Amino acid sequence: MASIDLNSDLGESYGAWDMGDDGAMLSIVSSANIACGFHAGDPSGIYRTVKAAAGNGVVVGAHVSYPDRVGFGRRDMDVTSEELMADVIYQIGALQGIAAAAGTSVRYVKPHGALYNRIANDAKQGHAVIDGIKAIDPSLVLMGLANAPILDLARKSGLSVVAEAFADRAYTPQGQLVSRREAGAVLHDAEKIAARMVQLAREGTLEAIDGSIINIEAQSICVHGDSPGAVAIAQQIRLRFEAEGIDIRSFASST
Amino acid sequence: MASIDLNSDLGESYGAWDMGDDGAMLSIVSSANIACGFHAGDPSGIYRTVKAAAGNGVVVGAHVSYPDRVGFGRRDMDVTSEELMADVIYQIGALQGIAAAAGTSVRYVKPHGALYNRIANDAKQGHAVIDGIKAIDPSLVLMGLANAPILDLARKSGLSVVAEAFADRAYTPQGQLVSRREAGAVLHDAEKIAARMVQLAREGTLEAIDGSIINIEAQSICVHGDSPGAVAIAQQIRLRFEAEGIDIRSFASST
Amino acid sequence: MASIDLNSDLGESYGAWDMGDDGAMLSIVSSANIACGFHAGDPSGIYRTVKAAAGNGVVVGAHVSYPDRVGFGRRDMDVTSEELMADVIYQIGALQGIAAAAGTSVRYVKPHGALYNRIANDAKQGHAVIDGIKAIDPSLVLMGLANAPILDLARKSGLSVVAEAFADRAYTPQGQLVSRREAGAVLHDAEKIAARMVQLAREGTLEAIDGSIINIEAQSICVHGDSPGAVAIAQQIRLRFEAEGIDIRSFASST
Amino acid sequence: MASIDLNSDLGESYGAWDMGDDGAMLSIVSSANIACGFHAGDPSGIYRTVKAAAGNGVVVGAHVSYPDRVGFGRRDMDVTSEELMADVIYQIGALQGIAAAAGTSVRYVKPHGALYNRIANDAKQGHAVIDGIKAIDPSLVLMGLANAPILDLARKSGLSVVAEAFADRAYTPQGQLVSRREAGAVLHDAEKIAARMVQLAREGTLEAIDGSIINIEAQSICVHGDSPGAVAIAQQIRLRFEAEGIDIRSFASST
Repeated sequence: MASIDLNSDLGESYGAWDMGDDGAMLSIVSSANIACGFHAGDPSGIYRTVKAAAGNGVVVGAHVSYPDRVGFGRRDMDVTSEELMADVIYQIGALQGIAAAAGTSVRYVKPHGALYNRIANDAKQGHAVIDGIKAIDPSLVLMGLANAPILDLARKSGLSVVAEAFADRAYTPQGQLVSRREAGAVLHDAEKIAARMVQLAREGTLEAIDGSIINIEAQSICVHGDSPGAVAIAQQIRLRFEAEGIDIRSFASST
Repeated sequence: MASIDLNSDLGESYGAWDMGDDGAMLSIVSSANIACGFHAGDPSGIYRTVKAAAGNGVVVGAHVSYPDRVGFGRRDMDVTSEELMADVIYQIGALQGIAAAAGTSVRYVKPHGALYNRIANDAKQGHAVIDGIKAIDPSLVLMGLANAPILDLARKSGLSVVAEAFADRAYTPQGQLVSRREAGAVLHDAEKIAARMVQLAREGTLEAIDGSIINIEAQSICVHGDSPGAVAIAQQIRLRFEAEGIDIRSFASST
Repeated sequence: MASIDLNSDLGESYGAWDMGDDGAMLSIVSSANIACGFHAGDPSGIYRTVKAAAGNGVVVGAHVSYPDRVGFGRRDMDVTSEELMADVIYQIGALQGIAAAAGTSVRYVKPHGALYNRIANDAKQGHAVIDGIKAIDPSLVLMGLANAPILDLARKSGLSVVAEAFADRAYTPQGQLVSRREAGAVLHDAEKIAARMVQLAREGTLEAIDGSIINIEAQSICVHGDSPGAVAIAQQIRLRFEAEGIDIRSFASST
Repeated sequence: MASIDLNSDLGESYGAWDMGDDGAMLSIVSSANIACGFHAGDPSGIYRTVKAAAGNGVVVGAHVSYPDRVGFGRRDMDVTSEELMADVIYQIGALQGIAAAAGTSVRYVKPHGALYNRIANDAKQGHAVIDGIKAIDPSLVLMGLANAPILDLARKSGLSVVAEAFADRAYTPQGQLVSRREAGAVLHDAEKIAARMVQLAREGTLEAIDGSIINIEAQSICVHGDSPGAVAIAQQIRLRFEAEGIDIRSFASST
């Protein structure tokens, strides 16, 4: 029987500002990438989301970011390796503390936004992230972009890795994400997306933007919860997986 | 043989801004109250100080604060209990992460500045701090003002506590700190301060501002490192303690 | 013919986080209290809202706050007078700069949240706000709570003032706001609220929570836009005012 | 008689953290680049420095930065043009407000740190800075790196510009700054530096790192005040200029 992880970015409210429907998503996903305060998330909001994740048996990961709240961590920054390593440790530690208070624990790390994209290919910043993770807890799993060099880099450094695919994104024939600047980069049809994800979970393949079939080795699928439409897509994927007998299960246990 | 702890506020640099002489102080004190990023301290600076503390065998504590960097945590804030509890957990967790990466661990919590003064007498905010500590790790010790109600509150809640006295401050005949707004509140004579601290460590007494002798039950003495004069006073206390055979030792082990 | 100002808190989005329906509110109100970055608002978001205000002929005011973004400026802070005065100047100046770029100008100052409530009765912080306004531009009008001491304080200091009433709040027989902690403090019936505001604009009176009629001398009415229900109430007030021939007009010109 | 401007980065303290000797530097320079709160400077500290600048007849400029306090604005950031333009307007406006309160005005804009280096050659971010300046006040002068493309870009956009040279930096034979990563990039000999600056002010030439003589058209010289050694170099330059009859004078009047 096929099984795969569904993950989503949660805990991204900040103070008086809400973002996303964490409650709905925690009934859909098996893994929650929780903001750690650098791009989003304040301590009491993070705590509420982590507690809800624990209550739903959803595995918690640290969604670490550049220190750029006003830019939501979406802007590339030339941080030094020393800064980046310490920023990663600090954020994971903060989330570990909150997870402990909420009766769960942090099992993986997924860099966010610009940092995620940067380390996919940038070995220097990638090493800093890897070094930070290894320094605080080498049993943490690094979640990264399927087919990106960061996964090998982390494996060679002794970290376990999880490759992720994006449910609502088109892929090039080479197995890369189609840039958001290009037409057709983002998919919107929930039925079609769900069918693609069934194929991914079962066969490890996807139809690329040119119609060719490509291999995508992914143990996790990223779904979004930042709009009603996004939640509906995630729900559709879950329903189809349940109907098809595909097990939605984290790569890690939640305790 | 008498023994007592010497503690100091460290890790209070921020980015390009230096504060204090952490290197000098780590050769003097047995416990380091490390800023956690809310009033001072950035991740890489905190990491360097914690690593140096570990290298010197100095015990690490979390110096938690209101979220007020521009005010250095010195301004009273009407935070809710939910916010305060989560802020405390987040800061302790972040420091625990950095401590783990640096090969040591966090053993106690000392609230900083306005929060320290507020919870000395305010049971509502005091309870929020206590609840935060207990939620993340009930074996953490709370360091608080000698003779203040917070110590009993924490003990009754099941936390271990350490009472601290201030080396360079005058005391009222009732055992309270003389307000900084009054003349003679802050002491500057290193010899005299050292002699007072010897008496405190040996007898548990101090001469109050009116010349009377008062009891101060303190297991730790706070010394400062934010000016050359302050470092000299701390060094003088250490020298006198060594000469008098008073053991400078933390209330906790560093590992 | 009666005329009165309608004001609302706008520009309160922050980076990726949205708040309120500024577009809808700018077609309803005559004055926009614009966040200045301390409790809410980032420069590009503030710029967009100010430009839209200018395009709608809505007068712009500076919604100055304590420096507490995570608390949305809702938490009382013991800032010094020197800090508060400079914080007020900085925020007004930043908004003046953005207003100049957007082809309009700042005409008044409304303190936000905890600062608004604090200075209503606290002369020390009130004076610091007044001093800040006078230092940067003594022609700026201070908007404050109807019947509160701050209005007299500001008038005696040489500032022009505007008293405001809250459309959706109940009043005590003494003309004070009923505390939000008490039942009936917040009104929800758009028809009833609109009828109350017509009476306020025409007669300068309101029915207090005990049924007595009280005098409220207010030149501006605060309406909210932070929920669809709030926007509907504001629209209802505007419609009733138009039907009744009450002129919705700022106390200042927009240029 | 030759005349030239001396400028320095001031107002870079932040809350409890001091940086630089603003008092000493304000008796040396003719122009003060004042931090605007994004990389350094809090409102009350900025106010004190601007007031002191006004008291010394020193011209005030806005030292605008990326929003990166923990990185002191030294880290390159991929901000959008819309964000950068609004950030520039906000910072200039805030400083204009403080300058008005202090009885002076902002006369020029000098981008700081990573932004300064980025726009020297990056036309996209350069245009955003220029657009921000023009939107708030097209009479503001842009201070930029001598020989860099940004100066022509600004001139063509209708801004007045001032080119600056760095007193303590070596230059390539092509008139560029020698990278700090290379040996000899930073000069330390106060006598030699002062002699170089006399030649620059008189002849518009400097000896490059290879011994060749190059033309540097600069109307302002940047000196530092962030260490006792740096202040001494600045003082030496001033003394030599006075002895040689070179007038130290801003390119703008201070009122």
